[in-house]
Amino acid sequence: MQRREFFKLSAMAGLATVLAPAANAFQIPDPAKKAVLNISFQEGVAYGNSLNEKLDFCEANGVVGLEPGGGGLAKRVDEFKKALSGRKVKISAICAGFSGVPMSDDPKVRRQAIDSIKEIVTAAGELGSTGVIMVPAFNGQTKLGNQEGRKIMVEEVLPELGEHAVKCGTHVILEPLNRGEAYFLRQVEDGAAICKDVNNPGVALMGDFWHMTWEETSDFAAFVSGAKWLWHVHMASRKKRRIPGEDGDADNYIDGFRGLKAIGYQHYVSFECGCGGDRKTLLENACKLLREQWEQA
Amino acid sequence: MQRREFFKLSAMAGLATVLAPAANAFQIPDPAKKAVLNISFQEGVAYGNSLNEKLDFCEANGVVGLEPGGGGLAKRVDEFKKALSGRKVKISAICAGFSGVPMSDDPKVRRQAIDSIKEIVTAAGELGSTGVIMVPAFNGQTKLGNQEGRKIMVEEVLPELGEHAVKCGTHVILEPLNRGEAYFLRQVEDGAAICKDVNNPGVALMGDFWHMTWEETSDFAAFVSGAKWLWHVHMASRKKRRIPGEDGDADNYIDGFRGLKAIGYQHYVSFECGCGGDRKTLLENACKLLREQWEQA
Repeated sequence: MQRREFFKLSAMAGLATVLAPAANAFQIPDPAKKAVLNISFQEGVAYGNSLNEKLDFCEANGVVGLEPGGGGLAKRVDEFKKALSGRKVKISAICAGFSGVPMSDDPKVRRQAIDSIKEIVTAAGELGSTGVIMVPAFNGQTKLGNQEGRKIMVEEVLPELGEHAVKCGTHVILEPLNRGEAYFLRQVEDGAAICKDVNNPGVALMGDFWHMTWEETSDFAAFVSGAKWLWHVHMASRKKRRIPGEDGDADNYIDGFRGLKAIGYQHYVSFECGCGGDRKTLLENACKLLREQWEQA
Repeated sequence: MQRREFFKLSAMAGLATVLAPAANAFQIPDPAKKAVLNISFQEGVAYGNSLNEKLDFCEANGVVGLEPGGGGLAKRVDEFKKALSGRKVKISAICAGFSGVPMSDDPKVRRQAIDSIKEIVTAAGELGSTGVIMVPAFNGQTKLGNQEGRKIMVEEVLPELGEHAVKCGTHVILEPLNRGEAYFLRQVEDGAAICKDVNNPGVALMGDFWHMTWEETSDFAAFVSGAKWLWHVHMASRKKRRIPGEDGDADNYIDGFRGLKAIGYQHYVSFECGCGGDRKTLLENACKLLREQWEQA
């Protein structure tokens, strides 16, 4: 390396940044692939009055994923295929929308959930979606404690769903929530351990920055623990669950983005949030904010 | 920085090592202090027929911590003070040894545990120990489910124990186990979240590589999630829970050591394990193995 190149690089990165690591810092191995920030909006979050207006808005802002709800998805497969044809936007994950409760204490209600999720998974596969998001049970939806519930999920519910997801070329994606919504499955690390135990290539995991705000001690560590199974990420502002940036300095995702970079994350970071102002401007600014924080991570 | 200094630094660290991080790799911020590998033995693990022989063996192998059991500790304070006087070995953590069950469904049994732990904490403080290890409840010791049990630990048991530990200048240290021993509290991340919720400077956390083998998806992420509260680490071989190295290639602690380095860990890595051969040689080799892996991490 020539002196001139060294100084060029120093000027780019800052000398301290270039040299500090080798001297002091801890470093984990590079991921197999370099991570990418693929921004996605839930269908209800995107700006526009029609599906096509929403997709135009996505493309204008470099947003490459759209996350529809799972309710009635089978009937909308053609509509989505047509609308997405020739576009840069793809279907990211599918958000729930099933009937029944996967971790119900009532076997009939579990069966209802499994059958309903399978229908959505089939449609998700046709759309090339990364997977169907599912919560095992919201508070009040099951009498099963953590230990019994986990056993039923690991031994009964998830193997059947995973097998079907593999056939459809997609996944079911477990979503940890915060304790206010679901006591069972609150940490990404716990979800990762469930995926490890299930050991089925159709069963994956996600992290939602909103819930992680309350339940995790380290966004970075949470994503690293989920590395092998992390198939989706949800995003919202960190105080009011609105568009990122609406809560000012609280909306810091850098530690989590470091985790996504560390694992070479290839999937979507998708907005699931309300909106407390001018949707168009807030979404445009949020995309900029996320890209800036991704660079800083 | 002068050109000469740059080349000197490059030669020391290797140019690729110096420059690669800024170009490709993910990197987390430096910890406040550089981590240290302080090896400790449980009293029963150390080689020797008397306390003094064990301490001689520790010093001969650069082992700087001794971890006694908590049973009857109050009566042994003078014995330990005398034996440790003028030595490089200190008391690391104190391993349990209390009566009662902290997370029992029976308030009387919880009270018994709290009082008994407090007695050990007092002795631990006199000995300058880092803290007293406690398991909330082994399998079969409580009728409380995870949600009720967690609430009692966070709101009732841990605040009282933490307050006493602070007065004594030490800690109570929560130990996550594997599901075969205790279903409640199996992941370091869950323990970290409990410590975060309790928010008491006397309440800390540990990780045990043996249990982590079964319950964690990433030793690295587990320790990073526990950063603020991680006050002790247990160590054993990863198949038979014997002396590290007895299980050959399975005894790889590098990913976890990376986590300890990442958080600037300052406390002890203590052997809690059986022994399937010549204790003296196995312990000597284990110290070498750990130091090699620490360097590699």
